[in-house]
Amino acid sequence: MAHQRYGEGSVPLWLHRPVGLVGLGLIGGSLGLDLQALGADVRALVHRESTAVRARQRGLAGTVSTDPAVLADCGLVVLALPLDRLLAPDPVLLAALPAEAVVTDVGSVKGPVLAAWDRLPGIRFVASHPMAGTAAAGVEAGESGLFRDRPWVATPVADTEHGALAAVRELALAVGGRWLTCAPDEHDRAVAMISHLPVLVSAALIGTADRGGEGPLAALVRALASSGFADTTRVGGGNPELGTLMARHNREALLAALALYRQEIDALEQLVQAGDWPLLHHFLARTHDLRPAFLAPPGQAAEELLG
Amino acid sequence: MAHQRYGEGSVPLWLHRPVGLVGLGLIGGSLGLDLQALGADVRALVHRESTAVRARQRGLAGTVSTDPAVLADCGLVVLALPLDRLLAPDPVLLAALPAEAVVTDVGSVKGPVLAAWDRLPGIRFVASHPMAGTAAAGVEAGESGLFRDRPWVATPVADTEHGALAAVRELALAVGGRWLTCAPDEHDRAVAMISHLPVLVSAALIGTADRGGEGPLAALVRALASSGFADTTRVGGGNPELGTLMARHNREALLAALALYRQEIDALEQLVQAGDWPLLHHFLARTHDLRPAFLAPPGQAAEELLG
Repeated sequence: MAHQRYGEGSVPLWLHRPVGLVGLGLIGGSLGLDLQALGADVRALVHRESTAVRARQRGLAGTVSTDPAVLADCGLVVLALPLDRLLAPDPVLLAALPAEAVVTDVGSVKGPVLAAWDRLPGIRFVASHPMAGTAAAGVEAGESGLFRDRPWVATPVADTEHGALAAVRELALAVGGRWLTCAPDEHDRAVAMISHLPVLVSAALIGTADRGGEGPLAALVRALASSGFADTTRVGGGNPELGTLMARHNREALLAALALYRQEIDALEQLVQAGDWPLLHHFLARTHDLRPAFLAPPGQAAEELLG
Repeated sequence: MAHQRYGEGSVPLWLHRPVGLVGLGLIGGSLGLDLQALGADVRALVHRESTAVRARQRGLAGTVSTDPAVLADCGLVVLALPLDRLLAPDPVLLAALPAEAVVTDVGSVKGPVLAAWDRLPGIRFVASHPMAGTAAAGVEAGESGLFRDRPWVATPVADTEHGALAAVRELALAVGGRWLTCAPDEHDRAVAMISHLPVLVSAALIGTADRGGEGPLAALVRALASSGFADTTRVGGGNPELGTLMARHNREALLAALALYRQEIDALEQLVQAGDWPLLHHFLARTHDLRPAFLAPPGQAAEELLG
């Protein structure tokens, strides 16, 4: 894990050449809004004409088309696609990427993305992941300021070109992201623990409350569930496609995180079984003390945190 | 589970006799503010003089004292004490409760409270539980409107007097609560699933992220944790005393909920291990569909939900 410093003073790539966005969902649409507000010429490729119509109405990009030729003049292209489409790229899209363009992605798993995209001829690829999400998806989801104070992680590898990485960094910082870099496997192990594992932990809790609340308890369990239950189950009640793709493409790291998690749940269950209240208190006091370190204060630069 | 209907037109007990509050933490202090705003004469007993001073400054009750005699004229007394002090009541407090007063509690477990308080001579006890909480505790925590649209559950038993139950219902409805009643064991099994289990599930996730984030991953895991991790871990990073008391006094129901939870986590782990993505998607689609039923719309009466 390291952060990069670059020379300053030159005009960033996203400002002196058109920026291409492939996909205008939550991430693509939000990027389009922010980059245009900063003066960029944003050109977007979408799959369906109905999406293009709505994206134009919302002003998500200066040009929106279903024709891959829309990317022709772009110096920087952001692949804001769902993980499955990112990992099996359409040959028509590959053919349409401008020669020597800097290309980056926004996928939540980096090892498989690099396996698919690194070393493709004619493009300068950088794997990256803006850690920004809301419950929304699709062409209606994009919003201004989504990336402000949120981590934007890049995972450069030996083939990653220094200038390409610098161009993506400029893009991330321009929209307010907290830039950091790490190795792809570090990224994937970290997000398994803080993003993919919570989905399963939380989904299992919904399943438990549903099964435990069968019969006469059903209405009562539902009536009594309050803000604590709502918070703990939010990510487990999220988009099932996204949850499945994360698990599928980060399977090894997720299984490792699940194994650790089972040890923690086992330990807690044994404390309750044994009635060891002092040790249970010790466990809960430790998690009480640990949690604030996982809640980075907004505005604090990731580079500082990791410096 | 049933709801009660009573004759209307009489002046509620909380308005024609002073109301006693034992404890002025989050629940007691919030009740004091709401009841005074409604015109009640609120008299509070607290443990320490320093608490009494601050409670008077905050106006949490009309009279605040460390002398149990403050309760002398109260027709209705609310025991707003931590579970451990509620379950081992101070004999001085017991002696100070006015003869024939309606007494209720706000504890999060009802079986053990009834074992300690039901059939005590000279008082008319009703076990109840307002499902309202914030992260705050102590004399600074009380706030107006805390109970509005939140469930207030009573668990009447054979000995519970009809008129006493009606008086507590009037109190709950006066502060905006959604009144419902159920059997004590139903209550305890339901809160084990939707309130006590989530604390352990969530604490185990913090423990996992801490252990999994040892060494070089430590700073990265902490820097990348975002809103999903924050939500899923909120209750697991809460008050360790409260979490331990809940587990201790609802142990059997919590162990049953944990056993169900392990089955759900096992099922999910097996799906990821086997790479059965269609079934994982099915599981996550089901939890996506189930969750809204656990998020009661504010303002919808519990009596309607359960009717």
